[in-house]
Amino acid sequence: MLRFLTAGESHGRALSGILEGFPEGVKISREFIDGELSRRQSGFGRGKRMGIEKDKARIVSGLRDSKTLGSPISFYIENKDNTINTFSKDTLEVLNIPRPAHADFAGVLKYEVKDVRNILERASARETACRVVIGAFCKQLLNIFDIDIISSVAGLGKVSCPRKDMSIKEIKQALKGSSLGCVDRKKEKLMMNEIKSAEREGDTLGGLVDITVEGVPPGLGSFMHWDKRLSAKLSFALMSIPAVKGVEIGRGFEYAVMSGRKSHDGIYYKKGKGFYFKTNNSGGILGGISSGQPITLRIAMKPISTLRHSLDSVDFLTGKKAKAPVIRSDTTAVTACGVVAESMTAFVLADAFLEKFSSDTLARIKLNYKNYLKGIKY
Amino acid sequence: MLRFLTAGESHGRALSGILEGFPEGVKISREFIDGELSRRQSGFGRGKRMGIEKDKARIVSGLRDSKTLGSPISFYIENKDNTINTFSKDTLEVLNIPRPAHADFAGVLKYEVKDVRNILERASARETACRVVIGAFCKQLLNIFDIDIISSVAGLGKVSCPRKDMSIKEIKQALKGSSLGCVDRKKEKLMMNEIKSAEREGDTLGGLVDITVEGVPPGLGSFMHWDKRLSAKLSFALMSIPAVKGVEIGRGFEYAVMSGRKSHDGIYYKKGKGFYFKTNNSGGILGGISSGQPITLRIAMKPISTLRHSLDSVDFLTGKKAKAPVIRSDTTAVTACGVVAESMTAFVLADAFLEKFSSDTLARIKLNYKNYLKGIKY
Amino acid sequence: MLRFLTAGESHGRALSGILEGFPEGVKISREFIDGELSRRQSGFGRGKRMGIEKDKARIVSGLRDSKTLGSPISFYIENKDNTINTFSKDTLEVLNIPRPAHADFAGVLKYEVKDVRNILERASARETACRVVIGAFCKQLLNIFDIDIISSVAGLGKVSCPRKDMSIKEIKQALKGSSLGCVDRKKEKLMMNEIKSAEREGDTLGGLVDITVEGVPPGLGSFMHWDKRLSAKLSFALMSIPAVKGVEIGRGFEYAVMSGRKSHDGIYYKKGKGFYFKTNNSGGILGGISSGQPITLRIAMKPISTLRHSLDSVDFLTGKKAKAPVIRSDTTAVTACGVVAESMTAFVLADAFLEKFSSDTLARIKLNYKNYLKGIKY
Amino acid sequence: MLRFLTAGESHGRALSGILEGFPEGVKISREFIDGELSRRQSGFGRGKRMGIEKDKARIVSGLRDSKTLGSPISFYIENKDNTINTFSKDTLEVLNIPRPAHADFAGVLKYEVKDVRNILERASARETACRVVIGAFCKQLLNIFDIDIISSVAGLGKVSCPRKDMSIKEIKQALKGSSLGCVDRKKEKLMMNEIKSAEREGDTLGGLVDITVEGVPPGLGSFMHWDKRLSAKLSFALMSIPAVKGVEIGRGFEYAVMSGRKSHDGIYYKKGKGFYFKTNNSGGILGGISSGQPITLRIAMKPISTLRHSLDSVDFLTGKKAKAPVIRSDTTAVTACGVVAESMTAFVLADAFLEKFSSDTLARIKLNYKNYLKGIKY
Repeated sequence: MLRFLTAGESHGRALSGILEGFPEGVKISREFIDGELSRRQSGFGRGKRMGIEKDKARIVSGLRDSKTLGSPISFYIENKDNTINTFSKDTLEVLNIPRPAHADFAGVLKYEVKDVRNILERASARETACRVVIGAFCKQLLNIFDIDIISSVAGLGKVSCPRKDMSIKEIKQALKGSSLGCVDRKKEKLMMNEIKSAEREGDTLGGLVDITVEGVPPGLGSFMHWDKRLSAKLSFALMSIPAVKGVEIGRGFEYAVMSGRKSHDGIYYKKGKGFYFKTNNSGGILGGISSGQPITLRIAMKPISTLRHSLDSVDFLTGKKAKAPVIRSDTTAVTACGVVAESMTAFVLADAFLEKFSSDTLARIKLNYKNYLKGIKY
Repeated sequence: MLRFLTAGESHGRALSGILEGFPEGVKISREFIDGELSRRQSGFGRGKRMGIEKDKARIVSGLRDSKTLGSPISFYIENKDNTINTFSKDTLEVLNIPRPAHADFAGVLKYEVKDVRNILERASARETACRVVIGAFCKQLLNIFDIDIISSVAGLGKVSCPRKDMSIKEIKQALKGSSLGCVDRKKEKLMMNEIKSAEREGDTLGGLVDITVEGVPPGLGSFMHWDKRLSAKLSFALMSIPAVKGVEIGRGFEYAVMSGRKSHDGIYYKKGKGFYFKTNNSGGILGGISSGQPITLRIAMKPISTLRHSLDSVDFLTGKKAKAPVIRSDTTAVTACGVVAESMTAFVLADAFLEKFSSDTLARIKLNYKNYLKGIKY
Repeated sequence: MLRFLTAGESHGRALSGILEGFPEGVKISREFIDGELSRRQSGFGRGKRMGIEKDKARIVSGLRDSKTLGSPISFYIENKDNTINTFSKDTLEVLNIPRPAHADFAGVLKYEVKDVRNILERASARETACRVVIGAFCKQLLNIFDIDIISSVAGLGKVSCPRKDMSIKEIKQALKGSSLGCVDRKKEKLMMNEIKSAEREGDTLGGLVDITVEGVPPGLGSFMHWDKRLSAKLSFALMSIPAVKGVEIGRGFEYAVMSGRKSHDGIYYKKGKGFYFKTNNSGGILGGISSGQPITLRIAMKPISTLRHSLDSVDFLTGKKAKAPVIRSDTTAVTACGVVAESMTAFVLADAFLEKFSSDTLARIKLNYKNYLKGIKY
Repeated sequence: MLRFLTAGESHGRALSGILEGFPEGVKISREFIDGELSRRQSGFGRGKRMGIEKDKARIVSGLRDSKTLGSPISFYIENKDNTINTFSKDTLEVLNIPRPAHADFAGVLKYEVKDVRNILERASARETACRVVIGAFCKQLLNIFDIDIISSVAGLGKVSCPRKDMSIKEIKQALKGSSLGCVDRKKEKLMMNEIKSAEREGDTLGGLVDITVEGVPPGLGSFMHWDKRLSAKLSFALMSIPAVKGVEIGRGFEYAVMSGRKSHDGIYYKKGKGFYFKTNNSGGILGGISSGQPITLRIAMKPISTLRHSLDSVDFLTGKKAKAPVIRSDTTAVTACGVVAESMTAFVLADAFLEKFSSDTLARIKLNYKNYLKGIKY
């Protein structure tokens, strides 16, 4: 079982995380991890904080030289924003006005505190930086087995892309030089206009992200018990990302309006090629099990909750009408959300992969995996 | 922690389940449970098997007279379909042709078996009967605290209903006498025409289901750690239902095309009434925590995988083209899917509720709950 | 992950259990399971209830013919004791007097109930019959890999056996025809005298049980995280058995009085034989990992809590001195406790084994295991 | 649910840990934590490394000023031993000789590595420093509810103390000024002589530790399911400590030689005093549930595995006889083991406490707890 805990407040000294259950013998590139952190900070539509931070993961344990030991991997990411590198009650006034769409309102009730700051520090999406580090470890493991994951922006504001069956190679090619992460450059331009216009109005936007995974062998997850389905696990991981309000697998909601004849993927066979499908409406998961086809996922992200144009709120202490505090923020973060979604997907798949092929040493996993592929003549 | 295991093959002697962690002192109505099982078997568009079964839950332990003891609750549901009440290899020929869109293909590879029957028996959606029993226990607990859950069909084939903010009382009223479970009788008629037409063509349909929950207090779930978010837990539970391919919370995918100003629910206060919202786009969950508003969820179900009109498949042994076996089936089961979705929602909410208010005895939970509501002046 | 839930009250209709995570393809002998249930009911010193019950496990799901499907295994054991096959409040008077050393006192406080019966029905050691069925499945899996488990009575009342390094073959030979389960027939006779004497006095006895496991490969469990140690897992499982109050691994408490030089097992090597040890003080576990040596465990069972000679107690309602109710009972059940301990040991080892060598199909596990043994030249 | 992960190699940059599920509103004393770390480093019989390290916990997140936020608590402990503050393969030669009684042998096989260093770095008992920090948080929570935990050395080498019923107040009084942690100063002197003598001979010693807990309310843990028993959870936590080979609750192994009449604690009642017991052989746990009496536990620690007097071993590469490498070490660490045992006990009890009385905020827990105590008139 692969598991991780993260910790850290948005304006605390550092974020940190521990990843436990990662196998022995995996060579880790620190550059790759920091590259992923950098991808999370990029994307057209981000505000100023992103410029300040320049996240780097410091790996404290779990590696000997650059190889994993099989021991828990711990890391931290310093919060560089030094002017506010403390959130002592002595230096900050109490914040009584919950910001709509944030965790503030529900958090203050749940934790029965007066100061919204006690809530927002941990509820901040800054926490997802840790998930990206976790995902970067998992991706490096999956890459050894030619499992690759990529996200792309499929919709932003009123602009959306129709689903296209593109290979990861094609997606990566199409994303080269893109500043927003959309495979369709014309659509991307329209999206960027949406962002600029929202920014002018002090408004924010959400969007759609597609996640594509290639190289997943058939056999991860199971229908044998309700809580073993890969579909459920992916859905859990993706819906756990702040601001994500919808998850689809394969055709997702489109499936609801199609008939069985028009939507179910027929099964074919050709000597040499083996079993194959002509369509992938199922999104690579059948009966809660990976089918060997690419796994395709789509998520919906709601608009950023902090707006320059203040939303209606109330002072918790007085009950009086008040404008929600405006903290500098992004106009949209849908590109970043894609990187986090890739990371969570990587975590779920790595966990399922290790469960099936052992989790002690890379060499052993490789052999078990090779034998399995041979066994299923896939 | 509330947990359950289920067991049972579609043509075995019985399905069974054990629910562990349910508190002491809850009065259980067996009629309610069987009523829920009956709801799962109903809905326009079901095939013949539903007529045969008439599920009843036999409760074997966990109750003294009609009250829970706090001990594990076990139950079974006999498979009445006696002509096939065995799936011995002696009486059934090997099935080599995987049915598209079913677990067959991925299951045969994962479990490296030759006979598809070894897969389909457990992968069958018949298993969800157990979940409905589990849900019926959880609902009876939640009802004590005025938490109510209802599903309705929001789309079927090409017909769909726009989201409407209806109270559960209104939804129940609108569903009275409905044979499909749609709150809009005109739309329902169109949906039924879709079903009849699909049936004539040997085709199948999926659809959309809305789940509405009222009475959930603020404070269930948490943003403090990624895997504690109520949103993620609900998404896990709903996506674990066979044939579900999409999950939305609140506005879900619509959120992706709205701006922050137009979508974020402002917060208001009125003396006597307390804090309130004018809209509920968030679907009752903020920062992974219930906000006290109704929880609104939508799921997409793909069309039934078994079609009278055979789909393309392949013989696993010979690799030759073959038509997928046709097993009697439903044209659509979207109404039933809604009952299962209610059940899984009830399970997640009951678990979160017990975690927050203790899980030993009903009397204690009641007191803790009352004090909490008083404490948050809600 | 292998997991199970059990359910059932002592005087309810049946006990039941579900075992989830068991691999596909294991041939199951129902006779073996019932033989294990019978072993649990045997042993010199048992009272009359044992005669009534004659437990049989009815397997309801998880098998096709006699082979596991990889699906959850469910079973029940009917309570044959028909005269009391109900514990309705209508037929039984309230029991207000907690029996010392039972769960009664703590249970009544925890569950805040008035009637001790609400506690004792589930707290009864009858529940361990389910664990024996679970263990019988696990043993059949382990046996395929030549992992064998046996228990023997190492002490009873004032009689105890010094630790001896015996192979399971020798232990089984020594136990043939034994009525108590002690490898030393002279000591056994003394033990039986202890039992007879206790019985005459209306008293009860506990004892010591040794559990020996052979064939466990090196590498189960891990020191990489505190909660992955095989030692901890075994200790959890054994201490969860009713009446067990002490657990030792290898030399256990004797280790505390030995010096490092005299207790630590030196490591040796001989061509052809490989690495070996001359002693096994560690009990087959080093750093929380199985070392490949036999695993040796010892547990201490307290005397049966129900005595004919009544113990001091108090009426819960009146606070008045009262004699604890005397329910027919055993004088000792140390032999049965050994069977339960074997079962729990089998469960922990099967779980650890499946974690290391995959858990989907027996054929795959066999291959992974063979390759591992080859890889470590063991 | 309270959970924690730890990370860190013995000669890495730092140890670290994350504790998740800790409630909001608990005032934390950093001095107390460092005091506990210091207690772990003390005790007669420790070697030189203890002098070097002087552990301090740096808390990185989870607190605002000195109060917990309810968010995950993360901390690290720097490894001060700078001369070896790296374990790069470039600077250290391969170690091929497994040290008997250590994790080396089993670890090298499990992880299929050549260099014992890849094993010993994480297997080192240095990891327990993190557990002490975790325990120090839990103790501070438990202390608020007057739950107190203390350990004392009950045996060392050939010297042992008979069990005495002492209150924590008496134990603390008796331990004042003690350098080994034994409540009997005469015995302690003999123990210290044992240590000196072992040290002269290059030998090592283990011992016995008693853990006493006062103030635990009745009702933690449960018999309702095998894996909910407090006894099992404590046993798991204690047996997970490196070098611990035996665990007892209450009379433990002595119970095995006593009769029911002589061992079972009668129940009494006195107006004003409530229910009480005259003896506590059960060790405060009945039916897997805390009874309200003091919880008494005893563990056996094996002698330190690293001896100056080398043990027999083998070169892994050549198969040739070799002497195990001698790394500077302690003669005994039984006092430290007691501190770790207190910490693990605190963790288990805090988890059980939060499960019963809610885990969100201290204020809420206090109220729920007060009401429970009132309800059970305890």
